Amino acid sequence: MTDSISYSDAGVSIDNANKTVAKIKDFAKNTFNARTLTEIGSFGGMFDALFPEMSSPILVASADGVGTKLKVAFMANVHDTIGQDLVNHCINDILVQGARPLFFLDYFATGKLSPNIAASVVEGISIACRENNCVLLGGETAEMPGFYQGGEYDLAGFIVGIVDKEKVIDGKNITAGDAVLALESNGLHTNGYSLARKLFFEVGGYKIGSEINGEVLSETLLKPHRSYYKSLSALIEQKKIKGLAHITGGGLLENIPRILPENVSVKIKRGTWHELPIFGVMQRLGNVADREMFRTFNMGVGMVIICAESEQEKIVSHLEEAGERCSAIGRVVAGNREVLIDF
Amino acid sequence: MTDSISYSDAGVSIDNANKTVAKIKDFAKNTFNARTLTEIGSFGGMFDALFPEMSSPILVASADGVGTKLKVAFMANVHDTIGQDLVNHCINDILVQGARPLFFLDYFATGKLSPNIAASVVEGISIACRENNCVLLGGETAEMPGFYQGGEYDLAGFIVGIVDKEKVIDGKNITAGDAVLALESNGLHTNGYSLARKLFFEVGGYKIGSEINGEVLSETLLKPHRSYYKSLSALIEQKKIKGLAHITGGGLLENIPRILPENVSVKIKRGTWHELPIFGVMQRLGNVADREMFRTFNMGVGMVIICAESEQEKIVSHLEEAGERCSAIGRVVAGNREVLIDF
Repeated sequence: MTDSISYSDAGVSIDNANKTVAKIKDFAKNTFNARTLTEIGSFGGMFDALFPEMSSPILVASADGVGTKLKVAFMANVHDTIGQDLVNHCINDILVQGARPLFFLDYFATGKLSPNIAASVVEGISIACRENNCVLLGGETAEMPGFYQGGEYDLAGFIVGIVDKEKVIDGKNITAGDAVLALESNGLHTNGYSLARKLFFEVGGYKIGSEINGEVLSETLLKPHRSYYKSLSALIEQKKIKGLAHITGGGLLENIPRILPENVSVKIKRGTWHELPIFGVMQRLGNVADREMFRTFNMGVGMVIICAESEQEKIVSHLEEAGERCSAIGRVVAGNREVLIDF
Repeated sequence: MTDSISYSDAGVSIDNANKTVAKIKDFAKNTFNARTLTEIGSFGGMFDALFPEMSSPILVASADGVGTKLKVAFMANVHDTIGQDLVNHCINDILVQGARPLFFLDYFATGKLSPNIAASVVEGISIACRENNCVLLGGETAEMPGFYQGGEYDLAGFIVGIVDKEKVIDGKNITAGDAVLALESNGLHTNGYSLARKLFFEVGGYKIGSEINGEVLSETLLKPHRSYYKSLSALIEQKKIKGLAHITGGGLLENIPRILPENVSVKIKRGTWHELPIFGVMQRLGNVADREMFRTFNMGVGMVIICAESEQEKIVSHLEEAGERCSAIGRVVAGNREVLIDF
């Protein structure tokens, strides 16, 4: 007679799942607001969808992951920042259309569930949600034996925001002569980590605890992706901005064209913004071509703003008052939806 | 001098990403409706949020994965059904609160991106979206070298639906004497696959192509999770249903209590519904205890309906006309939010 086999013999622990839920419950609850209409444990999260102050409310939704920045979190055994990366990345992705965040859901998948690590990740998610007035409305924690290496996990996020139709930013009014401004990033944000890890740890032989330019590499590489929501929301409300491009995978070269009308290009000049030293270090390590650097990394620019020249000065001073470093980096010119960089 | 290193040297191919986007574009577009306000390629997907026909519209959102059912898809090299599992699972998760689907976003992550496999997965997603009047509004395809084994991937989904406040199903009116009905599943749906794989492939020594009860095992195990949206929507609209429980991880034992008020339990009798033969095969293979079977698998029940006894007959005949197999399996009794099974 076969010994009686149970679900936990197959590597799935319902007890660990329950322990995890108990730990993350309060992190989620701390993000709830008056629009949140359900308690944890419901099948679906409920959220008030009445926006009487808007004439044509539009939901804006986006899904994203944090890519192989996770591998750096594993190496450093730091798990409470990666959730901030995820939320802030998602917030910027809907902010470019003028939307403010409403709610967020996460997907956390691992081979063998550690309630402590899962809780640490969700704590990071809840920190960024609170900072951006976003409700953590739900999520899924999946234990999948045989899928992930020991101690590893994957993480994805889904955000829904709202914008009134008349406040949507779509780039349609961008014309030659408009100003191109850059809001600084604080590091790689969440892009290019497969190349960064190759350059530092394979080519350069660095360790996660090595010091570069007076900073431990793990800290440099794990700086959470910045959210630009608070700095930009008033300007969006006042309709001062013609176009916003979140500089993610594809960099300045591929993200700016996504918001350009047919008949224009953008000309920017390298050196007009602060290129964080880490990008130079990586370029030298791998003798990486300029265009490859600009197609892979944000190169120090987290968000690009396009506005009428007449608004430029007011926008820059508003953003500097909000604590941003904002630089004029170029112009919109007649063209064919390209980014021309004067290296 | 180091040879010049590129992003693709680090295992990330922007060309493959672009090929994938080209392939999946039409699958997404085919799901669009009049409420869809953006084109593919925008940072966030836009969706009309005006519901003038509802007095208090409520968004209902849920995130989920398909767990290790994916491993069966890999073994069988069948990739166009797993997306249907994901969408239908998510739809049922919000349906239990009375919501109808609005839009869906997916997250697909893999070690080395195969445009054909990714497209096949998204095709499955789009099929289920179309069947359920749900828009595939966006998604993320992530190539993450070193995360997944060759040919493997993970898949998560995120759904947003809508329900008017007066139509929300929350189980609050469930009382002793109410009827408990079961809508049949067509297999394991998306739960218990780690145990199922252990039982079939380790304990039983079966192959993915083995025949059991006249059906190839891969077909039995990959039957897509059923959506009950079309069968239940009219009954929800007419407010005939007091409670709905989607039978997912935790089975009948843990999912029914999620919708019960404090002072009641549910008593059900095994044998009153059609238990698909696959569950008996697995139980015998591993000498699995009854409670363990019922805590891990749906045991043939995809959705539980609780209704007033006076409505039972009308509901059953409505559902049978809709092509469902629907059985009366028990009663609500005084109690403490438990499921009592008469084995």
